[in-house]
Amino acid sequence: MGQIGVGLVGHEFMGRAHSHAWRSVGAVFGPALLPAMAVLAGRTPDRAAAAAARLGWASATADWRDLLTRDDVQIIDICTPGDSHAEIAIAALEAGKHVLCEKPLANTLAEAEAMAAAARKAAANGVRNMVAFNYRRVPAIALARRLVEQGALGEIRHVRAQYLQDWIVDPQFPLVWRLRRELAGSGALGDIGSHAVDTAQYVTGQRLTGVSALTETFIKERPLATVSAGLAAQAQEVETGTVTVDDAALFIGRLSGGGLASFEASRFATGRKNALRLEVNGSLGSLAFDFEAMNELWVDKGGTGFRRVLVTEPDHPYAGAWWPPGHGLGYDHAFTNEIADFLDAVASGTDPAPSFEDGLRVQRVLAAVERSAANGSMYTLVEES
Amino acid sequence: MGQIGVGLVGHEFMGRAHSHAWRSVGAVFGPALLPAMAVLAGRTPDRAAAAAARLGWASATADWRDLLTRDDVQIIDICTPGDSHAEIAIAALEAGKHVLCEKPLANTLAEAEAMAAAARKAAANGVRNMVAFNYRRVPAIALARRLVEQGALGEIRHVRAQYLQDWIVDPQFPLVWRLRRELAGSGALGDIGSHAVDTAQYVTGQRLTGVSALTETFIKERPLATVSAGLAAQAQEVETGTVTVDDAALFIGRLSGGGLASFEASRFATGRKNALRLEVNGSLGSLAFDFEAMNELWVDKGGTGFRRVLVTEPDHPYAGAWWPPGHGLGYDHAFTNEIADFLDAVASGTDPAPSFEDGLRVQRVLAAVERSAANGSMYTLVEES
Amino acid sequence: MGQIGVGLVGHEFMGRAHSHAWRSVGAVFGPALLPAMAVLAGRTPDRAAAAAARLGWASATADWRDLLTRDDVQIIDICTPGDSHAEIAIAALEAGKHVLCEKPLANTLAEAEAMAAAARKAAANGVRNMVAFNYRRVPAIALARRLVEQGALGEIRHVRAQYLQDWIVDPQFPLVWRLRRELAGSGALGDIGSHAVDTAQYVTGQRLTGVSALTETFIKERPLATVSAGLAAQAQEVETGTVTVDDAALFIGRLSGGGLASFEASRFATGRKNALRLEVNGSLGSLAFDFEAMNELWVDKGGTGFRRVLVTEPDHPYAGAWWPPGHGLGYDHAFTNEIADFLDAVASGTDPAPSFEDGLRVQRVLAAVERSAANGSMYTLVEES
Amino acid sequence: MGQIGVGLVGHEFMGRAHSHAWRSVGAVFGPALLPAMAVLAGRTPDRAAAAAARLGWASATADWRDLLTRDDVQIIDICTPGDSHAEIAIAALEAGKHVLCEKPLANTLAEAEAMAAAARKAAANGVRNMVAFNYRRVPAIALARRLVEQGALGEIRHVRAQYLQDWIVDPQFPLVWRLRRELAGSGALGDIGSHAVDTAQYVTGQRLTGVSALTETFIKERPLATVSAGLAAQAQEVETGTVTVDDAALFIGRLSGGGLASFEASRFATGRKNALRLEVNGSLGSLAFDFEAMNELWVDKGGTGFRRVLVTEPDHPYAGAWWPPGHGLGYDHAFTNEIADFLDAVASGTDPAPSFEDGLRVQRVLAAVERSAANGSMYTLVEES
Repeated sequence: MGQIGVGLVGHEFMGRAHSHAWRSVGAVFGPALLPAMAVLAGRTPDRAAAAAARLGWASATADWRDLLTRDDVQIIDICTPGDSHAEIAIAALEAGKHVLCEKPLANTLAEAEAMAAAARKAAANGVRNMVAFNYRRVPAIALARRLVEQGALGEIRHVRAQYLQDWIVDPQFPLVWRLRRELAGSGALGDIGSHAVDTAQYVTGQRLTGVSALTETFIKERPLATVSAGLAAQAQEVETGTVTVDDAALFIGRLSGGGLASFEASRFATGRKNALRLEVNGSLGSLAFDFEAMNELWVDKGGTGFRRVLVTEPDHPYAGAWWPPGHGLGYDHAFTNEIADFLDAVASGTDPAPSFEDGLRVQRVLAAVERSAANGSMYTLVEES
Repeated sequence: MGQIGVGLVGHEFMGRAHSHAWRSVGAVFGPALLPAMAVLAGRTPDRAAAAAARLGWASATADWRDLLTRDDVQIIDICTPGDSHAEIAIAALEAGKHVLCEKPLANTLAEAEAMAAAARKAAANGVRNMVAFNYRRVPAIALARRLVEQGALGEIRHVRAQYLQDWIVDPQFPLVWRLRRELAGSGALGDIGSHAVDTAQYVTGQRLTGVSALTETFIKERPLATVSAGLAAQAQEVETGTVTVDDAALFIGRLSGGGLASFEASRFATGRKNALRLEVNGSLGSLAFDFEAMNELWVDKGGTGFRRVLVTEPDHPYAGAWWPPGHGLGYDHAFTNEIADFLDAVASGTDPAPSFEDGLRVQRVLAAVERSAANGSMYTLVEES
Repeated sequence: MGQIGVGLVGHEFMGRAHSHAWRSVGAVFGPALLPAMAVLAGRTPDRAAAAAARLGWASATADWRDLLTRDDVQIIDICTPGDSHAEIAIAALEAGKHVLCEKPLANTLAEAEAMAAAARKAAANGVRNMVAFNYRRVPAIALARRLVEQGALGEIRHVRAQYLQDWIVDPQFPLVWRLRRELAGSGALGDIGSHAVDTAQYVTGQRLTGVSALTETFIKERPLATVSAGLAAQAQEVETGTVTVDDAALFIGRLSGGGLASFEASRFATGRKNALRLEVNGSLGSLAFDFEAMNELWVDKGGTGFRRVLVTEPDHPYAGAWWPPGHGLGYDHAFTNEIADFLDAVASGTDPAPSFEDGLRVQRVLAAVERSAANGSMYTLVEES
Repeated sequence: MGQIGVGLVGHEFMGRAHSHAWRSVGAVFGPALLPAMAVLAGRTPDRAAAAAARLGWASATADWRDLLTRDDVQIIDICTPGDSHAEIAIAALEAGKHVLCEKPLANTLAEAEAMAAAARKAAANGVRNMVAFNYRRVPAIALARRLVEQGALGEIRHVRAQYLQDWIVDPQFPLVWRLRRELAGSGALGDIGSHAVDTAQYVTGQRLTGVSALTETFIKERPLATVSAGLAAQAQEVETGTVTVDDAALFIGRLSGGGLASFEASRFATGRKNALRLEVNGSLGSLAFDFEAMNELWVDKGGTGFRRVLVTEPDHPYAGAWWPPGHGLGYDHAFTNEIADFLDAVASGTDPAPSFEDGLRVQRVLAAVERSAANGSMYTLVEES
């Protein structure tokens, strides 16, 4: 069993989740290549060092460029906000490092195209790229894909995909980076809508070919993130800033196989915490999934009623590496599964999926959604790669 | 307690459901006006007579026009396909008969407008009109309306309304009247989409102001209805006809209060039998409903989790007239509730809801959907009344 | 199609439910014998007359004995509290009237035995008897029975049957007749536990052969029923009476086929309104049901996950006589189904089920439960018929 | 932040789960004492060494006694079958090592008593003991406990606790150690019933004071574990052995607060994979939980309907240390939570819970269940400590 060095960029939510996965993957999957958690990069030296110590990285740096030249780093894992993805990923690929990059691939279509081009070029030299659409590695989603692939659903007629959260319902919730276009690229659309699009395309094995869209920003001004709630209450005037992204995006479209699809991404769905929901109806059967009950896949055959499959059996995707039947997985396990697949691809010299190309494909959908929304919801074709 | 004579036109599915309700309403609600089930009209004399005998009507006729002149008929209940609604309803209103008419109000916007005009004119003389959007009288839907009206949800951000069935998934299912535009007006859109639209508008108390739409006919040719499945299998060539309505309709739009809404109507959602589903997200809470579990309303307050309310308590709408808590109602009870309200309105000299005007409002949405679908999904305003 | 005269005794909850069924059965099922709703008997003349008018009975009487001699009464339907079942049923059977009797069959084992003996004697003369365990006619329960009968579950290992309500949780709820042994026979045990026992025995096709039991009365004194809540609050001393029945009964036991079973009946299960719940686990599959979602049967085959069957398909028990798939039934429909079967049995000269003998079988279980509870929970055999 | 050395005994299912937790706890909780994973003990040298390497332990030994004298081991974590718990735990406590021991505490009441006595003695010297009833650390269960403690349920009337699995339904499943009394102590009763008892006692804060029980062994002979399925099919005669434990155990009983409780443990509940289910009904509200949907707690207040609480909010037990709302946890997270609490107790010099004394309390219930089952289900008091 060989070893391979890993450098991580970013140590907030995604950095924590990825670290947990890098730490766990060896014991759970016994991969051909064992990761050595070499270095963590973060902008502030003290915070990066503290995070490295806590999350299990051997060293820390305040400059992610250090990772490009270190011999003990063969993989660079990018967990920063979207505005720095392109710069880091392209540099890493050019330096010959395998890259795992958080989603959405980029903040703009141009950036995504540049990243995909860099990935293609690097791939010619055996350098691997992957975009971290983690939900593909939820066992229930992977099983859904398998069932569609096996033809269990027949011809796909309908997809209903929603990603619903409620964490910014309160108008006093501050203007965090995810609400600013210059950092996040878009709002609910890119942050969570991208997952809905990737999951739908992955499970059906089809592409979304055109869309008609509506977007909305319900709360247009919010307190600046730096003002604490307590101070805000006392202050006569709270400084506010403008929300420059969508709060919600709705779109309908057509699939490459002739079916119809509807999508919704919102952080204003009170009571829904992390409801990535997918329904697929085919001529022979149907599937339903809600991430809030992530271990369950609901499967209908021939209209006879939905069966609740607890996706924890040894022959279910990923489940065999974990615990016995009925002993479900949680949010972070999908990252461990994802990294196991990434390591396997690197070890076996194959291209992991979803690739930057897949990430670009999602980006093209997001771009078409924004164009349609800006153009009277006119049906807008998704650009072909 | 007075009596009031009723004449019914049509004795298929809706005629059976309405008859059950006319028969039950007295014992359950003890209304101020007791219905006398005077006469049933059906096109074929023998079949009309047999239906009258079985369904509890005192007499039968093969000509619905007989009802216009009978002294023992003060109410005419129209349960025919949509192509005859306008003619019968307008004649009935002009004859001074109160009219209850099945939905959708009409097959075309022009017909619906003529009906609403006739209704307005008759109303000046105390003649009442009602369109039978029965789902408004499902206790859970009525409770949903009550909660929104009381402000429990705050500002409405999202509506998700779907009406999903699967009875024509099989390409060998024949070309019944509901699949022919000249009889049904439209397909899933008018038959079940109209319910979704009315329910969403009723529960939110808002109007859908514009839509962007996609429609599709998945199976374009079907065996003629007169060919039995057995014969079809034997025959070398089965005679087929063209499906002239939509199999499915998807649309997104905006509500008069500023929220976003998505709609879907399909008879190709394998495994969904009669899933009229509604979700409403507001700034203070949310609601969720699925007719397949019609006695349950799911209510969230402030994002604390959805509570399953079994809508069978004495203080819930309609429930007190029926059985003790937990003893749920079925499909037909909504018709009995509806007719109780209709009789109350007639008895008290008030206008029942939903009126023909409400039916017209739904019709305008359906028309906008068809226009948008025909026009590249362009966002299309719903015409104001 | 012939007619048959019916007399009903009692017009409270059960009288209302049965009346609804007698009124509906003709139109829904078109039975060989159409019921003529001849007479309603109630103790107070005025109230009986008012109930007859409202519920659709042609006449009323204050003396149920009148029904014994009326020529227009061939069926006597007993909807009184349990203390009068034996007297009325035996008299009716001896008078040659077919008898439908509410459950539990009687308040004591001795009464039940006398009733079963009278039924056997009358049956020799073609007089039919049936005990109204209505839940057998819920389509989902009937489908469960069918599946077990067909062997879909294999060898039965476990039954879990509960009937949970919460209507007497409040200690101020008054001492109604159901809380007094002299009228009700027992408490939760007889009122709802009897349904759980009958449903379990019916679905499995097996008998409960022995039990070990615990019973409890949580609230031992309650306000007398005649004291209104308002007065009670004002009064310095509210007159109370002693609860003389069980508030809850738990028992475990063995089935004739070698499986284990557990039962619980309680009206103190806060939040459960009418939760008759049944789970059956067999060597090849399992079933689960909850009356609070009465149109759903959950079916597992071989441990592959529970399928939610919406029991509304044409080939499901009773469902074909009602509405299309997905258009569910309510509480009262089971009574209509039951009466349709009763009428069919009378018309065809066969014995309906469940018979008084089946009612006696349940009564023997209730008696064993009470003996075990009084005897240190000692395992107690259910007496063989 | 200090360090503390850990030695693990056993590396099968529980050893893997505990290792995952020891590996994760530092990054997730940042405990005052960081564990150093010093040594893994397993009976076979090669297998122990391989397991240590994979699971992250610095060294391995084939003799657990080595751990008693190693200076780099302050905590001994026992993950062996029940037959060795007493020997290892008592030796470890006497050697001054803190002990975390898998459940059930022991195979016999005598062993459990000896262990509790050793724990009491060691505690006087600051040596800590804990029994690993992991389900207490599922956030939903911990929240359930908190709600009961706060009085949200009022007086507890009913507990319904079941632990249902189906992994030995097949009669050809071999005679593994869990089916042999000399190794496992008992069958479903000790393995999973012990969890149901501990969970019920923990959530209610009450003790089970007496029980009436039935147990059964459905399949009395099974193939020996060493015979593979393939060989078995070929062989003319498959060697079998006798199952010496219960396949299922049912019991009902009384709680110290006056409520009634029912329990069931079975591995023959086809379709239930790991269904630890708990329902608690109180005078003011109710709770329901099923481990198969481990992130959900269903909470009723005053009979108004069960609310689905996704137990992933920052103010829910343990959830704040993990992921954002709606990003649920899996089976293994409860072990990490448990070990975090254990380390906190060691660091702060307090006694962790559940203690060996709590484990003994469960053992006394199991012993009473076996006595009752052997004694005609006679109600049997649970011995007081």
